[in-house]
Amino acid sequence: MSLLSSVHGPADLKRLPAHRMPELAQEIRDFLIEAVTRTGGHLGPNLGVVELSIALHRVFDSPRDRILWDTGHQAYVHKLLTGRQDFSRLRAKGGLSGYPSRAESEHDVIENSHASTVLGYADGIAKAHQIQGRTDRQTVAVIGDGALTGGLAWEALNNIAEAQDRPLVIVVNDNERSYAKTIGGLANHLATLRTTQGYERFLAWGKEALQRTPVVGQPIFEALHGAKKGFKDSFAPQGMFEDLGLKYVGPIDGHDIAAVESALRKARGFGGPVIVHCLTVKGRGYRPAELDEADRFHAVGAMDPYTCLPVSPSGGTSWTSVFGEEMLAVGVQRPDVVAITAAMLQPVGLAEFAKAFPKRIFDVGIAEQHAVTSAAGLATAGLHPVVAVYATFLNRAFDQVLMDVALHRLGVTFVLDRAGVTGNDGASHNGMWDMSILQVVPGLRLAAPRDAEQLKAQLREALEVADAPTVVRYPKGEVGSVIPAVEHLGGVDVLQRTRVPGRTGQDVLLVSVGSMAGACLDAAALLTADGLATTVVDPRWVKPVDPALVQLAAAHKLVVTVEDNGRAGGVGAAIAQALRDAEVATPLRDLGIPQEFLQHAGRGEIMEEAGLTGTGIAAQSAAFAKHLLPNRGVNEPRAS
Amino acid sequence: MSLLSSVHGPADLKRLPAHRMPELAQEIRDFLIEAVTRTGGHLGPNLGVVELSIALHRVFDSPRDRILWDTGHQAYVHKLLTGRQDFSRLRAKGGLSGYPSRAESEHDVIENSHASTVLGYADGIAKAHQIQGRTDRQTVAVIGDGALTGGLAWEALNNIAEAQDRPLVIVVNDNERSYAKTIGGLANHLATLRTTQGYERFLAWGKEALQRTPVVGQPIFEALHGAKKGFKDSFAPQGMFEDLGLKYVGPIDGHDIAAVESALRKARGFGGPVIVHCLTVKGRGYRPAELDEADRFHAVGAMDPYTCLPVSPSGGTSWTSVFGEEMLAVGVQRPDVVAITAAMLQPVGLAEFAKAFPKRIFDVGIAEQHAVTSAAGLATAGLHPVVAVYATFLNRAFDQVLMDVALHRLGVTFVLDRAGVTGNDGASHNGMWDMSILQVVPGLRLAAPRDAEQLKAQLREALEVADAPTVVRYPKGEVGSVIPAVEHLGGVDVLQRTRVPGRTGQDVLLVSVGSMAGACLDAAALLTADGLATTVVDPRWVKPVDPALVQLAAAHKLVVTVEDNGRAGGVGAAIAQALRDAEVATPLRDLGIPQEFLQHAGRGEIMEEAGLTGTGIAAQSAAFAKHLLPNRGVNEPRAS
Repeated sequence: MSLLSSVHGPADLKRLPAHRMPELAQEIRDFLIEAVTRTGGHLGPNLGVVELSIALHRVFDSPRDRILWDTGHQAYVHKLLTGRQDFSRLRAKGGLSGYPSRAESEHDVIENSHASTVLGYADGIAKAHQIQGRTDRQTVAVIGDGALTGGLAWEALNNIAEAQDRPLVIVVNDNERSYAKTIGGLANHLATLRTTQGYERFLAWGKEALQRTPVVGQPIFEALHGAKKGFKDSFAPQGMFEDLGLKYVGPIDGHDIAAVESALRKARGFGGPVIVHCLTVKGRGYRPAELDEADRFHAVGAMDPYTCLPVSPSGGTSWTSVFGEEMLAVGVQRPDVVAITAAMLQPVGLAEFAKAFPKRIFDVGIAEQHAVTSAAGLATAGLHPVVAVYATFLNRAFDQVLMDVALHRLGVTFVLDRAGVTGNDGASHNGMWDMSILQVVPGLRLAAPRDAEQLKAQLREALEVADAPTVVRYPKGEVGSVIPAVEHLGGVDVLQRTRVPGRTGQDVLLVSVGSMAGACLDAAALLTADGLATTVVDPRWVKPVDPALVQLAAAHKLVVTVEDNGRAGGVGAAIAQALRDAEVATPLRDLGIPQEFLQHAGRGEIMEEAGLTGTGIAAQSAAFAKHLLPNRGVNEPRAS
Repeated sequence: MSLLSSVHGPADLKRLPAHRMPELAQEIRDFLIEAVTRTGGHLGPNLGVVELSIALHRVFDSPRDRILWDTGHQAYVHKLLTGRQDFSRLRAKGGLSGYPSRAESEHDVIENSHASTVLGYADGIAKAHQIQGRTDRQTVAVIGDGALTGGLAWEALNNIAEAQDRPLVIVVNDNERSYAKTIGGLANHLATLRTTQGYERFLAWGKEALQRTPVVGQPIFEALHGAKKGFKDSFAPQGMFEDLGLKYVGPIDGHDIAAVESALRKARGFGGPVIVHCLTVKGRGYRPAELDEADRFHAVGAMDPYTCLPVSPSGGTSWTSVFGEEMLAVGVQRPDVVAITAAMLQPVGLAEFAKAFPKRIFDVGIAEQHAVTSAAGLATAGLHPVVAVYATFLNRAFDQVLMDVALHRLGVTFVLDRAGVTGNDGASHNGMWDMSILQVVPGLRLAAPRDAEQLKAQLREALEVADAPTVVRYPKGEVGSVIPAVEHLGGVDVLQRTRVPGRTGQDVLLVSVGSMAGACLDAAALLTADGLATTVVDPRWVKPVDPALVQLAAAHKLVVTVEDNGRAGGVGAAIAQALRDAEVATPLRDLGIPQEFLQHAGRGEIMEEAGLTGTGIAAQSAAFAKHLLPNRGVNEPRAS
């Protein structure tokens, strides 16, 4: 029986002798490599926190003490140590979540995968414990160096430092890779280092030196500007933490369990806010990850752990790569176009642009607000910035889009990747909010391309708009084949008009938003077979509503809108309002994602449950049509 | 002829000899006191930046150099020096804006009054100048110490420090009052001061000492925790700025024009990012403001400059004070209720609660994100937080409401003051977005009280919800008289059912949201006089849509919804969707604020233009009814 399988919870862990911890750590690493390469998931971050997680659960007493994980993809080891060792359906429907989950365990507190939130939660929990007189309860927040670049984390630190009598342990999980890159990215700063040792020598000190607290008053200034993956993910050195009034312990070798335990015990007894700075190696113990500079093992698909080849290789072209290639072309032709991303250069497809135009790319760190407001500044001075982020993360800069860009009538283009349902990452990664909240932004124009050609064309159109924000949004995954228009009406593309034999006139107008075009064409075939003449259109620009769309609606008996966005206040709702305003009485039904937080599952599973497949759209449209057109004698569409 | 009247732009200012600047400063102060007490406006902040504004325009060359003002209410002197000296209609329709305005002057860049944005803009502009090779252009950002508590400002500083070769002058306008309060609020920190002088002695040094740069390496740690008005508005001391890699000049006496000019010249020539730390006195030169600890002269209504009595005293009770009093009562009965605000304790009505329950109030600084996420933490630990902010500022924490509170099903109550049209402060202060963007938040419940009794009742109802976010939103100004319900259907209050003689059945269902009740009752009277039997209802909780409202709609011939919120995706749109989903075919028209950025004007003027008065609502409803009910022979309603 393995050590790991004997650990059903923190109490079992505490019972094991300290000298067996390295053995347990090795078992956990073996388990992670085996399990995560089988299902896919976050590998690098979890291999980096094996010892840290063990130490936390040995020193603190969860769930009485609250252990909080920022950006919860680093919580796999925590799951293993708190009774969750069945990783066979990790991130799949009904299986373990890829993040902490309160439904899974009383040891989990924050389910959110948006970064930089943990210190805010921790401040609130620590305040509550103080008010409630629960002096026996500790609050422990684990945050990565990258997440400290987010303004929310800074706001929290500023508040945490306010009360010196409120216990709170902040563990900064500082990946050693960040250090290594720091040297390259900030060599010009090194000369001003205030340590008595040179920077490289400091890094080489090894375990012993790392545990020694640097001399107070001689902060390692430049460490602050640690750049992760060559860019902006900074962490703060002890000098700065001390300026903030926060007690600092470190740096600690985060892979030395005894050292981490000792530091945590010290922090636990301090009685006020304290930072424990742990240096860890992302991907630790898995050679391919340790050796990979591009950090491709941060999250992996199912793959062979030895060859690192994917189990089911992707054949198609991704939306992301279409955008990336087009940006490269744009960059050559338009010297005024600059690109901004928030710690996601590679994932949003800007790596090639960055290589080609290193002076026109800005990675601002996990700082979406600054991404948007600095874009406003760039546009103020006459450039055209493209801000590329995941759709769900633009929510973090809504006010900046509204006030800093739109109110100022600035030409900034937002490119939202991973819009719609993403699936396995769970509720906080789905990009199902953007087409609703952006509806309120005056002047903003929003495009949802249906295929690669449209993505390229609409990006170009967006870049022509100099006096208003523009948005181009598309989903995760592979872009399908090109879907040509058969007709253009105003800005609207007619994709298909089906006829019913022996009769003229159209029944159903299917308004397909973005990538829903394929499913809408499938639905049209089913509806036509059942006697409903169906027109499928793609408005291309869904905000503002095209007048041609209103005219089309007036010429049909039923309008059905289809979008991969939450139904509340989405594109369907906007079209419905346009019809009301134009006094077009054609009934409308709006299909979209239910306005709920969606459990993690495959994208296809979720889309099917939401009725957003060809069959689902046809069935719902036919049901509406049957009710509204009772004399037509429509049958339920056949199952496909 | 006065000196001031001879200054038509920065060139005139530069031509004046340096020794006449104190005279000019005095003229400007006299002008401000006279003009702003006549119209109302921001007084204290502008009196504090007279010398700073003069120095900026003497040293820099606007508009070639870009001078950017954070939270633009400190830009009155800048306006006076750039050709705008007619303050007679300040903040009134057609008069000068209370903030910078690009329509007014080429010297204005940022129109936004949301705080902490200036460094993001400045970073973008400085980056653009570098890309464009415009080495002749300087970028200057003026930011208050309070605004540095916002995470957006920190994100920007972190990025600005990245490039040491990109010129950018950051002027920190640090109100001396903040210093004075620092002593009281953080006396426990003073012992650790690293200056060779004691803190009070440092403050007393006077002008000469203030201009001397403190010894490098001995940062004034505690200054970081400067607490404005007794709370959290911190500014960072030079030690911290230097840790960030930013060159620091200061502190400078911000009222010594020669000293400020000298520092700015030094900063201008530096060639990289540099902080100029100016100490100023809010309200400088106006005794009532200088003496007022409560900072009531920050913004004033029209008043007598000698007696400080308001020109038109407010007779009524404000929405804010109703909330404040009820919170006091709640505080006594519910020890689990805590309150949070973001640097607006007094304006949102929490001052009395803070006095009564000092351990249960948290002012987090200008940090709405942290307000929300720390509230999530407090709720996680079993307390019920009330987060009270202006409606427009909740936009800054949308993601935190969605992910940190709603996804986690936490009982946090948001109280949104100044919702709807605020008017004179212009586009960025209107609270016309909340009822749209909050529609997408799963589980969130939103109340819009119509009167003081409802505000109290709905706050209490909100505090009973332990597993979801709740929102109570109300407008600026005085709460009207209580409007009783004549009937209750589900959660919906029926306020009136008018009858048309000789006939049964109701024609129009007027759905009144929150404070629109009075106008809707006025409209009902007009519609009834014209032969339309009208039912006026208040749904009280506008999200989720009450099933009783759907039933009521089915029993009428026309539904008209009325809300003081933008039309896109608002309450009307949500009700329309609910009717579609229930297959209720009654036509609906949704009245609300046009989805535009509104020019500054009086609240009443804007509401009238938007058609949200009794007359306007009646006229629009009748027009819809005439079209829909052609056989009724309805006349246009009389003008009221």
